[in-house]
Amino acid sequence: MAAAMARVGLDDPRVTIRHASEVVEMDEKPSVALRTKKDSSLRVGANLVKAGEAEAFVSAGNTGALMATAKFVLKTLKGIDRPAIAARMPSKAGQCVMLDLGANVDCNSDHLCQFALMGSVYAHSVLGVEAPRVGLLNVGEEEMKGNEVVKVAGERLRSDTDKWLPYGEYIGNIEGTDIYKGGPDVVVCDGFVGNISLKSSEGVAQMLTHFLREAFGHSLLTKLGYLMARPALRRFRDRVDPRKYNGAMLLGLNGVVVKSHGSADETAFANAIEVAYHLAVNGVNDEIRSKVASAQAQQTTEDAS
Amino acid sequence: MAAAMARVGLDDPRVTIRHASEVVEMDEKPSVALRTKKDSSLRVGANLVKAGEAEAFVSAGNTGALMATAKFVLKTLKGIDRPAIAARMPSKAGQCVMLDLGANVDCNSDHLCQFALMGSVYAHSVLGVEAPRVGLLNVGEEEMKGNEVVKVAGERLRSDTDKWLPYGEYIGNIEGTDIYKGGPDVVVCDGFVGNISLKSSEGVAQMLTHFLREAFGHSLLTKLGYLMARPALRRFRDRVDPRKYNGAMLLGLNGVVVKSHGSADETAFANAIEVAYHLAVNGVNDEIRSKVASAQAQQTTEDAS
Repeated sequence: MAAAMARVGLDDPRVTIRHASEVVEMDEKPSVALRTKKDSSLRVGANLVKAGEAEAFVSAGNTGALMATAKFVLKTLKGIDRPAIAARMPSKAGQCVMLDLGANVDCNSDHLCQFALMGSVYAHSVLGVEAPRVGLLNVGEEEMKGNEVVKVAGERLRSDTDKWLPYGEYIGNIEGTDIYKGGPDVVVCDGFVGNISLKSSEGVAQMLTHFLREAFGHSLLTKLGYLMARPALRRFRDRVDPRKYNGAMLLGLNGVVVKSHGSADETAFANAIEVAYHLAVNGVNDEIRSKVASAQAQQTTEDAS
Repeated sequence: MAAAMARVGLDDPRVTIRHASEVVEMDEKPSVALRTKKDSSLRVGANLVKAGEAEAFVSAGNTGALMATAKFVLKTLKGIDRPAIAARMPSKAGQCVMLDLGANVDCNSDHLCQFALMGSVYAHSVLGVEAPRVGLLNVGEEEMKGNEVVKVAGERLRSDTDKWLPYGEYIGNIEGTDIYKGGPDVVVCDGFVGNISLKSSEGVAQMLTHFLREAFGHSLLTKLGYLMARPALRRFRDRVDPRKYNGAMLLGLNGVVVKSHGSADETAFANAIEVAYHLAVNGVNDEIRSKVASAQAQQTTEDAS
């Protein structure tokens, strides 16, 4: 064991190995994995966080099973009905955080308001944005736009900004293009829409990269051009390197859990670990817990009066 | 008037001018425009189609007002509950058609099945795909994925493929990335999700183009590289030129109506006219009418038995 660990550079005294004897397959149903694989790495990792033996858990496994297991073992933070998957997204201005990216396909306006609160705490505590601008992903900027859930959530975030966004500013509805323009620091949506927005974006980026490569490979002339363009293209590639954005956070749980892309390489996985590290050192969960408690206390006072 | 027309190259005997004395502003509420602007170009154009004086109507105006006016004047095709906004999208393999892109923020499974039928008729009749592959936009490929509406629609398209997709094949759930990979010929979704997917895609494409330009403008070396890379970059730009995809169709109406992007130049607007032309010459609306009638007849037989 020691020899094998040394071979992959894990012979650091700070590293310990916890064995997990079972494997949750990538296409396995979350509920089945949760019920039958009690010694999978997902379960072992979540248990370590629960027991306080680990400050954070990073996994590149089955997302649905990770969420189900983490939720079962760690439970959600008091005041948060449903954990959300959140990730940093690149934008012209730098980055923003977007949630939910797929944990909840059906959301009500309560859930969206809680996502807004969690995203704004993250942007403030980890991204260092003094007053995060929070936008609601919609089909147009006007207040009358969108489906019922989004309209009600928008109304609540507008009238109760202090309650839901203790640090932030509510900038209203935003459109899909705005995610990447650099307007909002926090993009709020349900998991169905968020997942499709994210995957559509990935699809376009892959297609454009493919076409760019094809264009440079077209003829001797364009191949020569490629050689000359390499410094610029390398600069471009570094700027949009998806590995930088690896590490989706399962926000709203009693513990730090981060999901890495399944095909992550060392650089990407290191970034996922860094995401988990920042959540832990900045005490994001405690911060969410306290801000949600204030929001609820305010609600109770309002209801009583 | 004749002189003014000659100046912009419209002194062709096939061109006639129909005056419209009112203007619907881009941010005007559709219902207000419909009620108060009875001599806007939107209304005049729709009236001409209704009267049979025009085979098609292309507008670069307010989308919501165009849809409301066209629906009011032309009515929907028998058997279609709601018209949808459809557009051709680029993909690695060529192109596909996607609908709804924003006409209907709340859809039920009936609507999604009708969108699938309309999209498959368009792909067959206009794009020339013998047996269009129809996919349902979702958060995962497995049948259990998605919200209730999508699950029910998927179930119906799967079990009644012949009814809903007279030419096509149902390929099941697809993810956002698949739109641009070249798998499906028809992508079906509700207008909320479709609009956000489309706008997110536009946003990423704009951001990447921006970063690419910045990378080439970085230093003297990268600027030199740009000069050498121009043939390839021009090739790339032509391939992904959004003007090629200008012209969104309002499918499901008794008449051909196409929406051009508001900022379209001549090339882009010509493409929107071409989209309208193909809808008209290929009799897409008659085809939709007849296929929907067959689907309904089949439904009636099933209900009676």
